[in-house]
Amino acid sequence: MEELFKDVKAASCQIFEKIRKGLDESFYLYDGRGAGGDPSSRIDLFAEDIFIEKLQKYGKIVSEEAGEVGEGERVLIVDPIDGSDNLLSTFPYFGSSIALKEREKTLFSFVVNYATGDFFVKWDGFYKKGSLFHDRLKNIRVNYHAKVGIFEKAYANADVVAHLKEAGLKFRSPGAVALSLAYARYVKFVIFIGEIRDYDVAAGLHQAQGLYCYQDSNTIVLSKEQEVFDKICEIVQKDCHGNQ
Amino acid sequence: MEELFKDVKAASCQIFEKIRKGLDESFYLYDGRGAGGDPSSRIDLFAEDIFIEKLQKYGKIVSEEAGEVGEGERVLIVDPIDGSDNLLSTFPYFGSSIALKEREKTLFSFVVNYATGDFFVKWDGFYKKGSLFHDRLKNIRVNYHAKVGIFEKAYANADVVAHLKEAGLKFRSPGAVALSLAYARYVKFVIFIGEIRDYDVAAGLHQAQGLYCYQDSNTIVLSKEQEVFDKICEIVQKDCHGNQ
Repeated sequence: MEELFKDVKAASCQIFEKIRKGLDESFYLYDGRGAGGDPSSRIDLFAEDIFIEKLQKYGKIVSEEAGEVGEGERVLIVDPIDGSDNLLSTFPYFGSSIALKEREKTLFSFVVNYATGDFFVKWDGFYKKGSLFHDRLKNIRVNYHAKVGIFEKAYANADVVAHLKEAGLKFRSPGAVALSLAYARYVKFVIFIGEIRDYDVAAGLHQAQGLYCYQDSNTIVLSKEQEVFDKICEIVQKDCHGNQ
Repeated sequence: MEELFKDVKAASCQIFEKIRKGLDESFYLYDGRGAGGDPSSRIDLFAEDIFIEKLQKYGKIVSEEAGEVGEGERVLIVDPIDGSDNLLSTFPYFGSSIALKEREKTLFSFVVNYATGDFFVKWDGFYKKGSLFHDRLKNIRVNYHAKVGIFEKAYANADVVAHLKEAGLKFRSPGAVALSLAYARYVKFVIFIGEIRDYDVAAGLHQAQGLYCYQDSNTIVLSKEQEVFDKICEIVQKDCHGNQ
């Protein structure tokens, strides 16, 4: 896994450098629709090419833009750019996520934030935070001072927004799902309501293991605090029933 | 103004270094309530002390935590930590904002993002983007590829969230007002609905000059696109009337 980590970090550094130098206009163009259904911008495709080249030797790659590439019992689930709309809007919250799976079990995950250079990497008992700027790794600490949670796709779920306000639960809604799942251990809670695709959540959910977690076909709720978790499950499930 | 810029940048670098080294537990403690009404954490107070020390020679300082310090016809409006709740939640969107005013006219503004190290600085005809990591300055470019807007305090305005969805306007809600106003030129739009205090908006509004702008006592709307701006004004005003 250490070699995989080295290669994933090297690929991320290459993409990070490209973004920091500033995208030229052509990177904003769209080259058709990716396998995941969203339009692919050239920066998505640029990042995907780098991951495919560097990671193909580890197994089959399943990526948002290209679909399935190569063969192997081990599968790498890659979101080349998580939060593309943010990157193209110069809004500083976007990254990449990579998960290695074998028979549906996630063995390795890596989530990187290109706005800050921070990343999170996890396999077996190894779970660290690092930076693309240097080689030091830090332990992941639970943050007991969190004031706010994250609600991904709040813009599409006004009814849940209203219930969270009633419950006094403040949230941010930053728009890059894998990143937000990777921050779940730090913030008060994470909610994601929308279409759940494996690219978006495989790495982030691996990182969030050990937290209270609810997941169904279009909803994820995570929190380290049981009371907060129960409250949100009530809010979200009530809405799910209401919508049926 | 160049000297003020140098001193503001030096102060920001000092705060940035402190945050990057990692806050020790004591920085999460609260030391009473600031002049602005919100509780002050020690990191707010630490940052404020640095700005007061470095900037007092330029005039009276009006800051969120300490209130008014010193004398002078020129007034520095300082938000030592914009997005404190994010910082304390380890959510990467927080910074500082500084505006210099004389007779209600803003002459200078500086907004810095400590999560990325990026800052924006503006006076007279000078308006640049830079980084705390180096000395190069870049021109501010309008981004015509923006996919998403920013809606600050979306969590408290579910009715507006619902109307934006109907209008097909996607937003992020990151939770640091001055920063979000400084990004207004890049993203599709910025909406802020809530109590408007001068600390929160003086620097950001100075940076957003030239965009379409609506402002009343509890609402700000900014966009470079007139059609988007008109649509949001309609949505927001309709709601304002509805609430009266």
